[in-house]
Amino acid sequence: MEFSKGHGTENDFVVLPDLDVRLDLRADRVAALCDRRRGLGADGVLRVARAGALRAAGVLDALPEGVGDDDWFMDYRNGDGSIAEMCGNGVRVFAHYLRATGLEGSAEFVVGSRAGARPVVVHRCDGWTADVSVGMGTVTELGTSSATVGGQTFTGLGIDVGNPHLACVEESLTADKLAALDLTAAPDFAADFFPHGVNIEILTPLVDGAVDMRVYERGVGETRSCGTGTVAAAAAALRADGREEGEVRVRVPGGEVLVAVRAGAAELRGPSVLVGSGRIDDDWWNALA
Amino acid sequence: MEFSKGHGTENDFVVLPDLDVRLDLRADRVAALCDRRRGLGADGVLRVARAGALRAAGVLDALPEGVGDDDWFMDYRNGDGSIAEMCGNGVRVFAHYLRATGLEGSAEFVVGSRAGARPVVVHRCDGWTADVSVGMGTVTELGTSSATVGGQTFTGLGIDVGNPHLACVEESLTADKLAALDLTAAPDFAADFFPHGVNIEILTPLVDGAVDMRVYERGVGETRSCGTGTVAAAAAALRADGREEGEVRVRVPGGEVLVAVRAGAAELRGPSVLVGSGRIDDDWWNALA
Repeated sequence: MEFSKGHGTENDFVVLPDLDVRLDLRADRVAALCDRRRGLGADGVLRVARAGALRAAGVLDALPEGVGDDDWFMDYRNGDGSIAEMCGNGVRVFAHYLRATGLEGSAEFVVGSRAGARPVVVHRCDGWTADVSVGMGTVTELGTSSATVGGQTFTGLGIDVGNPHLACVEESLTADKLAALDLTAAPDFAADFFPHGVNIEILTPLVDGAVDMRVYERGVGETRSCGTGTVAAAAAALRADGREEGEVRVRVPGGEVLVAVRAGAAELRGPSVLVGSGRIDDDWWNALA
Repeated sequence: MEFSKGHGTENDFVVLPDLDVRLDLRADRVAALCDRRRGLGADGVLRVARAGALRAAGVLDALPEGVGDDDWFMDYRNGDGSIAEMCGNGVRVFAHYLRATGLEGSAEFVVGSRAGARPVVVHRCDGWTADVSVGMGTVTELGTSSATVGGQTFTGLGIDVGNPHLACVEESLTADKLAALDLTAAPDFAADFFPHGVNIEILTPLVDGAVDMRVYERGVGETRSCGTGTVAAAAAALRADGREEGEVRVRVPGGEVLVAVRAGAAELRGPSVLVGSGRIDDDWWNALA
């Protein structure tokens, strides 16, 4: 059972190549594999297969719009074993893996996800680093709301990027003040506005085309990076600057990405790193209760 | 650059076979490797080499008492890249690795550590699990002290097992009450009694030869297991039971070990698990600043 371990701006993944879809990714097994002391440890798992093979094996009931049988499909699982539709940082690592291993011969291709087709461009790639752009789909503004984080109340723009965000551009914030913010406790937010919860981004205003951002992910806590969160942050920063389109460099604790917003859709460009690869012990995997 | 990933009662390690002592285990590189999102992630690194090779390469100035050139030596590094003398859970994984890979042909051998020679017995071993005993050296009682943990004050026995412990047997504790204890904040302890800090164990009284224990490790926080901590806990539980010798099963959040205390010395027996193995990307390692 082969694996690779990699990360996109320190959002980290175990990549499991499984072209014949033989692995049973039961939630408890995925959770054990992602457990940072019992297993290999990761924020999530990226199973690598073709969309058609996943459909034939019954992992997918039907293919999402725009995804064909021959397209690669990122079968993403959260660290707790649950299924998530998409992961913007994961798609970069997924695309990097395909190119680095030679499974994909082209620098531009489609990665299927449960949220739909995600076109990727691998601008540069070697065995351990890559620079990848991912089409992130539409960005929808939901209106203004506010949240209390670390004892301070922030007002921001509700934004849907396939999942809900509240991106708060705080004019008085500097990078240092942002770094000092206490993000340990779960924020208070308007539950009627975000009935399914919300990911909250706090960011500095746009200066020289860049912002600094921290994110509190719904159900997780603060993370070093959140792909859709950087898209929401860029859209909110542009809007606060009186614009609907443009490019924004978003600095997160785990690194930096470049977000382009055009005609209501976004593209996320950033790094991928593959740290190592090897084999998971088959007996270990099979013994997982 | 080969590696294996394993754990002993969920105290987890990256094992680096380096028989020719070619790796430069600079602190920043070890820290990056142990970083749970940037690297592979682990509590620490176990470099595998013979003691003589480490001395010849200048990693060791001299061999600790009882350790010969031909003995295996566990060159242990903490997750932050600093050097630690010993790790009771690490020695089990180290010995398991040697047996599972065939590097060691005998089931009984010596593992050198900076704290001295540690005799090990590999009772049972396959590719991914093992049952290993480790001689943990002398156990020295330091007298009574107390600490405040989660708003409660506990009185216990100061015990030196190469490092300082305060092991508190609390008569009124049950396993459920222990599990409910808040161990998030650093305990208050008598700094004049423990000038170099202290690891603190809270445990239930000895019932049917077993105790439940949680541990707050000096400079780290709560962990799922601490090898020397289980030894200190067993010694304190026996003493509270009016004995100086005996065997105690110690249940920790990460599993269970068996500690035997005899004539002022202790032996720790417990499991080891090897989850997987592979190669770390050489370019990734060499690029670490």
